[in-house]
Amino acid sequence: MDQQKIDILLCAKVWQPEPWVEGLSKSPYVNKVHVWPTEEDLSSVQALFVWKPMDEGVVESLPNLKWVSSLGAGVDHLVNDQQIPSDIPITRIVDPHLTRDMTNYCVMGVMMYQRSMDKHKENQETSTWDRLPYSNLKVGVLGLGELGGHCASTLATLGFEVSGFSRTPKEIEGVKCYAGDQMSEFLKPIDVLINLLPVTPQTESILDKNLFERLSDGTYLINVARGNHLVEDDLIEALDSGKLSGALLDVFRQEPLPSEHPFWKHPKIKITPHVASVTSPESALNLLQKNIARLIKGEELLHDIDRSAGY
Amino acid sequence: MDQQKIDILLCAKVWQPEPWVEGLSKSPYVNKVHVWPTEEDLSSVQALFVWKPMDEGVVESLPNLKWVSSLGAGVDHLVNDQQIPSDIPITRIVDPHLTRDMTNYCVMGVMMYQRSMDKHKENQETSTWDRLPYSNLKVGVLGLGELGGHCASTLATLGFEVSGFSRTPKEIEGVKCYAGDQMSEFLKPIDVLINLLPVTPQTESILDKNLFERLSDGTYLINVARGNHLVEDDLIEALDSGKLSGALLDVFRQEPLPSEHPFWKHPKIKITPHVASVTSPESALNLLQKNIARLIKGEELLHDIDRSAGY
Ligand SMILES: NC(=O)c1ccc[n+]([C@@H]2O[C@H](COP(=O)([O-])OP(=O)(O)OC[C@H]3O[C@@H](n4cnc5c(N)ncnc54)[C@H](OP(=O)(O)O)[C@@H]3O)[C@@H](O)[C@H]2O)c1
Ligand SMILES: NC(=O)c1ccc[n+]([C@@H]2O[C@H](COP(=O)([O-])OP(=O)(O)OC[C@H]3O[C@@H](n4cnc5c(N)ncnc54)[C@H](OP(=O)(O)O)[C@@H]3O)[C@@H](O)[C@H]2O)c1
Repeated sequence: MDQQKIDILLCAKVWQPEPWVEGLSKSPYVNKVHVWPTEEDLSSVQALFVWKPMDEGVVESLPNLKWVSSLGAGVDHLVNDQQIPSDIPITRIVDPHLTRDMTNYCVMGVMMYQRSMDKHKENQETSTWDRLPYSNLKVGVLGLGELGGHCASTLATLGFEVSGFSRTPKEIEGVKCYAGDQMSEFLKPIDVLINLLPVTPQTESILDKNLFERLSDGTYLINVARGNHLVEDDLIEALDSGKLSGALLDVFRQEPLPSEHPFWKHPKIKITPHVASVTSPESALNLLQKNIARLIKGEELLHDIDRSAGY
Repeated sequence: MDQQKIDILLCAKVWQPEPWVEGLSKSPYVNKVHVWPTEEDLSSVQALFVWKPMDEGVVESLPNLKWVSSLGAGVDHLVNDQQIPSDIPITRIVDPHLTRDMTNYCVMGVMMYQRSMDKHKENQETSTWDRLPYSNLKVGVLGLGELGGHCASTLATLGFEVSGFSRTPKEIEGVKCYAGDQMSEFLKPIDVLINLLPVTPQTESILDKNLFERLSDGTYLINVARGNHLVEDDLIEALDSGKLSGALLDVFRQEPLPSEHPFWKHPKIKITPHVASVTSPESALNLLQKNIARLIKGEELLHDIDRSAGY
């Protein structure tokens, strides 16, 4: 085998493999792209590219595995996968288009709430002309990483009053940044809370009754990170009590959201089917190609995660 | 009367006068704010601040009038008002908050269309999980003045492919600018057309069959400038034929839009009641105060319009 080319296994059963295989095959550093499930001999595969869920036995079939990449921004499906040896680096997709789309989705969600677009739609149904007032909003972004940081600074540029919260202290122009033990201080003044945290043992189920109680009455929630961040019964309770004025949800504990789930019919919940930001193969392939070249050259991979932190 | 203070007449019958009167009265340059209609002696009034419609006889009652200001961004209600002598300067409100709100409304309109938010809402009603795809859009902005220029450059910053059209050539970073006889060239490639023109004899009824025919099939229209720009029957025809895929309308020939108007029930029209950007007294007063000081000092007024151009 050419020392300058590697074999890759693609394991993304819920997606069409073609655009990935086609894009990767064009790389001067790629020998062959295998697609799971397969009967082929995988002993020469060095890189595993995965979108969830990953079958048992995948990693076992790769005796020469050197690197695992998520095909999305999230790595929660990989961090806790016992199949992956602890010395194998895990990377994820950080991509300007993915970031832009997530920011734009959140911006849209904030603005639709600010401008009462659902109420205007109802008014249209009854031919009612009612110039509902709007005011500038304070938006708080939970998680100031690749996505949260960009989202917060864009909202600030658009004229919103923006704050953010992260694990370690941050400085972002136009954004009031909180960290560590300042969660309550961060939550109190905001009108809209956007969740852009990763799922870790510390953040799982973080959007619960205890957090909601520290918000001002009538705060609006946007959850675009993961369904596992949210305690579903606590959300319904907070909406019904008026603690929260509404919620825009793009992610759910079970996806597709089961048709009998109470979220579908709740008058204060707006649902989109995990489309806030969808990885585009063309765009994500840029980063994958760069990392393939780095693997071959023995350089450190871009956007590898800290497995002990969980993200 | 103190030479350093002036009397003002406020004529904005559809609005609450209090915030304006209160704000203006705080100015060191203001002697008294009169509110139309009034029986008071108005012979000392030098400045007339108007929001439409203006009654007949208002200007006639002001023998010392030196300046007329619109209380909004638009001046179409004043340019053609025969009451106002041709040597009296007319100014309008240019205000960062007004501009921001208009841009944000347009951004929201583009994104709601891009992300099929109405279809997602319908899907929610039937508990349907359908990950509708989205793609990046080409947005064209008609009018690159205070509002159109800011809207275009903000959309470009957010990652849209943006072009614009104005009377005289412009240069705006990230925006492909057209002018003069390049209208057809401007219209052809775009997915969304945003109208931010002023109403003048040249632009009245500009959104008509002839213009729509020069767009690609399925273009989406956002009209936030004035109802008089749009030929209503031509819009309905273009929507029904599929030439246009939909329209977001904030302004109408008759406002409030009459309850029997066909726009209300059209499945491809989204209506908001002239709220894209609402003048906020606190914010607009900054400019008015500056201009009052300039009037007293005999300096040129800010944001005066070219009455021959009509805007
Ligand atoms: N809905 C969709 O379509 C979609 C698409 C893509 C991604 N996502 C989700 O979006 C989320 C964010 O992705 P990302 O790329 O921005 O992640 P990231 O770059 O890893 O950023 C994570 C941020 O969360 C902060 N954080 C982590 N643990 C924390 C804790 N215990 N308390 C407070 N802050 C904590 C981090 O703080 P430090 O900065 O101090 O480390 C960092 O600022 C992920 O959950 C991902 O799965 C959703
Ligand atoms: N819906 C709402 O809530 C709301 C709120 C505020 C304002 N508005 C409306 O928004 C509109 C825009 O306001 P603005 O402050 O941005 O106006 P502006 O600063 O006067 O800008 C007007 C723009 O239109 C261009 N233009 C004028 N005549 C033209 C023609 N015949 N062909 C092509 N381009 C032409 C001008 O070109 P040049 O640059 O070459 O002069 C300029 O770029 C107005 O109609 C206003 O009434 C609506």
